[in-house]
Amino acid sequence: MSEVAQRFGTPCYVYSTETIATNYRAYRDALGHLPHEVHYSVKANGSLGILSLLANLGAGFDIVSGGELFRVLKAGGDPAKVVFSGVGKTAAELEYALRSGIGSFNCESQEEVELLDKIAGQLEARPVVALRVNPDISTETHPYIATGLRDHKFGIPFKAAERIYRDAERFPHLRFESISCHIGSQIFDTGVFFEVLEKVMALVERLRGAGVFICQLDLGGGLGVSYRRDENAPSIAEYAAGLANAVEGKDLRLLIEPGRSIVGPAGILLTQVVYRKIAESKEFIVVDAAMNDLIRPALYQSHHEIIPVVDRNLEVLNADVVGPVCETGDFLARDRRMPTVDTGDLLAVCTAGAYGFVQASNYNARPRAAEVLVEGSKAKLIRERESYEDLIRGETIDGDSQSAS
Amino acid sequence: MSEVAQRFGTPCYVYSTETIATNYRAYRDALGHLPHEVHYSVKANGSLGILSLLANLGAGFDIVSGGELFRVLKAGGDPAKVVFSGVGKTAAELEYALRSGIGSFNCESQEEVELLDKIAGQLEARPVVALRVNPDISTETHPYIATGLRDHKFGIPFKAAERIYRDAERFPHLRFESISCHIGSQIFDTGVFFEVLEKVMALVERLRGAGVFICQLDLGGGLGVSYRRDENAPSIAEYAAGLANAVEGKDLRLLIEPGRSIVGPAGILLTQVVYRKIAESKEFIVVDAAMNDLIRPALYQSHHEIIPVVDRNLEVLNADVVGPVCETGDFLARDRRMPTVDTGDLLAVCTAGAYGFVQASNYNARPRAAEVLVEGSKAKLIRERESYEDLIRGETIDGDSQSAS
Repeated sequence: MSEVAQRFGTPCYVYSTETIATNYRAYRDALGHLPHEVHYSVKANGSLGILSLLANLGAGFDIVSGGELFRVLKAGGDPAKVVFSGVGKTAAELEYALRSGIGSFNCESQEEVELLDKIAGQLEARPVVALRVNPDISTETHPYIATGLRDHKFGIPFKAAERIYRDAERFPHLRFESISCHIGSQIFDTGVFFEVLEKVMALVERLRGAGVFICQLDLGGGLGVSYRRDENAPSIAEYAAGLANAVEGKDLRLLIEPGRSIVGPAGILLTQVVYRKIAESKEFIVVDAAMNDLIRPALYQSHHEIIPVVDRNLEVLNADVVGPVCETGDFLARDRRMPTVDTGDLLAVCTAGAYGFVQASNYNARPRAAEVLVEGSKAKLIRERESYEDLIRGETIDGDSQSAS
Repeated sequence: MSEVAQRFGTPCYVYSTETIATNYRAYRDALGHLPHEVHYSVKANGSLGILSLLANLGAGFDIVSGGELFRVLKAGGDPAKVVFSGVGKTAAELEYALRSGIGSFNCESQEEVELLDKIAGQLEARPVVALRVNPDISTETHPYIATGLRDHKFGIPFKAAERIYRDAERFPHLRFESISCHIGSQIFDTGVFFEVLEKVMALVERLRGAGVFICQLDLGGGLGVSYRRDENAPSIAEYAAGLANAVEGKDLRLLIEPGRSIVGPAGILLTQVVYRKIAESKEFIVVDAAMNDLIRPALYQSHHEIIPVVDRNLEVLNADVVGPVCETGDFLARDRRMPTVDTGDLLAVCTAGAYGFVQASNYNARPRAAEVLVEGSKAKLIRERESYEDLIRGETIDGDSQSAS
């Protein structure tokens, strides 16, 4: 990590090829004997270098926007193995997806079904469609990332979904062969997935009884990862094996959409101490990474372990680890037991591979960090650090466009 | 607004030249008879078009990073009228600022003072320095944007500051002629500013008694704006006139750093309804703007009024206004009385001129919105909407750099 910091500067996201591959394979291997597809959830980390790595391993992709489809295609992903999810797909995005020949659409409202049917008709396409059903099941996670309750914006209530499936002939350009569900993210209690599965299977059986043959089930993602040293996240292999068992013999192709559990533990945010600051009542370690680089602590009150890159057996003190952004919400850790690091020391903010860089902004006119992918002893830059010129690209003063090339 | 949406698309930030100019002038006019400078706080909204407008009106600038300095210089701002604030200025940023000849530095720790003195010596510069003192005064605002308590990362405790001022000869390359203070943002109780002023004036007098002649006082920004229809934000003119009174005759040049109160009420986020969605228990209005465009509701639980661009006297219902991003934290309003708008209708998310676009991200691979500045009947694009190609700029797969030009 010291070499990476030297070569690419800080702050910098660093990802491990091996951890990503290991996590992806844990899903695939546990499901191997079933018809299945592992769709990596692009929203967790959409860097081309990571998408390309996963595409080469055989992954499909779960996307939620036209921009994510563009990324997948650029990274060499197979459009046939792409599922398009999300509550606000625009007509332009649906058209782009249909023209790209993506695998299936998870529709989230009747209005969307109607729009997709219309556009598919115009393009003479007939895509596979799943309705995303809302199981009204509560999960223990941050309220911002729980998505399975009936008062969430996601999914279609079971009864309304059943009506649409039974009315399938109203939508001649859609193939209603799939059903989907996603209850949230960072879930530790895997029991809830099986509860959902049971509810959805009951609906599938009812629909089959009524002549609607559902042959594909997309159970979404959501498996939690350990952010704290003392946490014990569920094992991917056990969870996936459990799913395989539950679906076996049900005549269903199983899709899953893991994101965080593949890339979360595979990444760190590498940062350097700018100042040690002793206030009246507490100490601050001011680092060169900030809330614009990693907003999870401020937005979700998330915990990330922070450790020095070089362990010098330093004394430990109570400190806040904060960035240079001018607001109190800019912190990476609060009241944390931290070694007494010095200005210039490198720190690793752990488990930052998911929902890290993808949520980065240019707040306080801070260029976004570099991203580096490590494989064995080699480190490869997969995204350059932004420059000041990048900050103003596309801006205009008095009619002069700023084209930073 | 309908024309703007037609011409530039949605989502789109739209700012009013007139409101910005009026708010800026309200500060300037109230302070006009005193030696003073109004430094616009770039972090609130750093678009070149807005900085250029303010520079032309004679404003100085409060910056918190090298990137913001770059922006100010690009927009034609006068470096002599720039103050550099912030807790984490790096050596590279200090050097860039000194070489650019900026007016003064608000230093936030002894370590920073030492670093600045060293770099100034190397460059044979001798900048004006203020210590940012921490008044340990609490304000009623969101905890993320309160900055004046002693357990905040900002400022230097009074006693420690006094020691540094009295030790000024230890720092031969710095001119300790100024003092600064900033207690937070979105403050409605202006009394607290005068309380702070009194505390800081007492320190100034003590220092003068000890032979340290402070001739400049930077009181920061922080005046609140009305986000709710029924709120009554303090008047800029009254607040600034009060400041002028309090400082008159004190032999001080007064600097203030307003941001939100100048641009906040001058901007809206223009968005279009993508779907109306009726869930079991509630209604959702899905729009094409999302938390990646405006994170304030999710991050600060902020309220923004949302009104239809065309008032069609529609029935009113209870709804959530949400974006297409795949998490429950993606909302612009919750349980809000809203007119029963249709797909395609335009909505204005009000008071979005400050801390809106500057905190925008590409989350869910969403290109960032366009920005438009309106003057009279003319609308000018000041920042182009990002394209899909923009999303992957600087990224590399397998050694091939993505240069989107």
